[in-house]
Amino acid sequence: MPHVQITWVTGRTPEQKRKLAERVTQALIEDGRAKRENIQVTFIDVPPTDYAEAGLLVADQKRAP
Amino acid sequence: MPHVQITWVTGRTPEQKRKLAERVTQALIEDGRAKRENIQVTFIDVPPTDYAEAGLLVADQKRAP
Amino acid sequence: MPHVQITWVTGRTPEQKRKLAERVTQALIEDGRAKRENIQVTFIDVPPTDYAEAGLLVADQKRAP
Amino acid sequence: MPHVQITWVTGRTPEQKRKLAERVTQALIEDGRAKRENIQVTFIDVPPTDYAEAGLLVADQKRAP
Amino acid sequence: MPHVQITWVTGRTPEQKRKLAERVTQALIEDGRAKRENIQVTFIDVPPTDYAEAGLLVADQKRAP
Amino acid sequence: MPHVQITWVTGRTPEQKRKLAERVTQALIEDGRAKRENIQVTFIDVPPTDYAEAGLLVADQKRAP
Repeated sequence: MPHVQITWVTGRTPEQKRKLAERVTQALIEDGRAKRENIQVTFIDVPPTDYAEAGLLVADQKRAP
Repeated sequence: MPHVQITWVTGRTPEQKRKLAERVTQALIEDGRAKRENIQVTFIDVPPTDYAEAGLLVADQKRAP
Repeated sequence: MPHVQITWVTGRTPEQKRKLAERVTQALIEDGRAKRENIQVTFIDVPPTDYAEAGLLVADQKRAP
Repeated sequence: MPHVQITWVTGRTPEQKRKLAERVTQALIEDGRAKRENIQVTFIDVPPTDYAEAGLLVADQKRAP
Repeated sequence: MPHVQITWVTGRTPEQKRKLAERVTQALIEDGRAKRENIQVTFIDVPPTDYAEAGLLVADQKRAP
Repeated sequence: MPHVQITWVTGRTPEQKRKLAERVTQALIEDGRAKRENIQVTFIDVPPTDYAEAGLLVADQKRAP
């Protein structure tokens, strides 16, 4: 505990995920009284057709996500 | 806010997701007092081996999902 | 299938949820090839201290959610 | 009801998922007062770069997940 | 890993959750090649107004959930 | 995008959540190429009877979560 689920459009590299997993874990230890060994972080990558903001698929947005 | 996660067996087209994202967004605005710009809808597509109903994988069901 | 999880700040009435559950279900039947009896919709109500947009808790935003 | 989401690193076979879906369903019937026809179980498979334990991606762990 | 989220209508006792957490954990060890120390199970209890099946809130169903 | 769901046992203060929401948001901007205005973070607080680690409810663990 805690469990973190990060859902977003695919496109981040393993290196970016590596850094983020560590930063989120560190934040939960320092500001959330969590113990490192119990923290789990999951990334759910979905294609741009599978995430909508304001009713609009990311695939249909003019600017990159 | 709100965030909507729709989990189902893969097979819907981008056009179906486009329509659904807009309809769900519109429903949340009209009946849920949500503001369009804050609404996010995510589709989580899983293969038919990864969704079970009543203990039975969709892949094992006789009828299509 | 599908399963829908709607996460938002508490404050909607049962009547609003009743209408939304039906509208989301109807949309999934018409545009998502889902069968009514398999559709499940869950509302996850969280307090305004437990939802952040753009790094800011809803509890700290000037305007109501 | 209930809905069960199992998130893990990819690598399990359909046969393993078939058994697990049935066992989890059976447990919910016997110990959770759930009715079989309403139980849904979803497996979310993610690559080893997308799941971190204790701040470390499974892809970076020495031992297999 | 894995992380299990069980979402349902409130009403189960701690003793029922205790049994279920152990049974689900045991199933994941035996049939899912998971290690006990990495398995996390979360119960998300929602009121009967916050879970709909087939478009109908559990609160509005004639039979108990 | 992205949406972050943090599930844990209740007990953190609004101030802790305020700090965490900002830190997680900042991490996603710097290391995840996300835009601040699209990032949403949700905390799902559950009682100690509703989170199990290694098959054991947090309520039954000797040490505090």
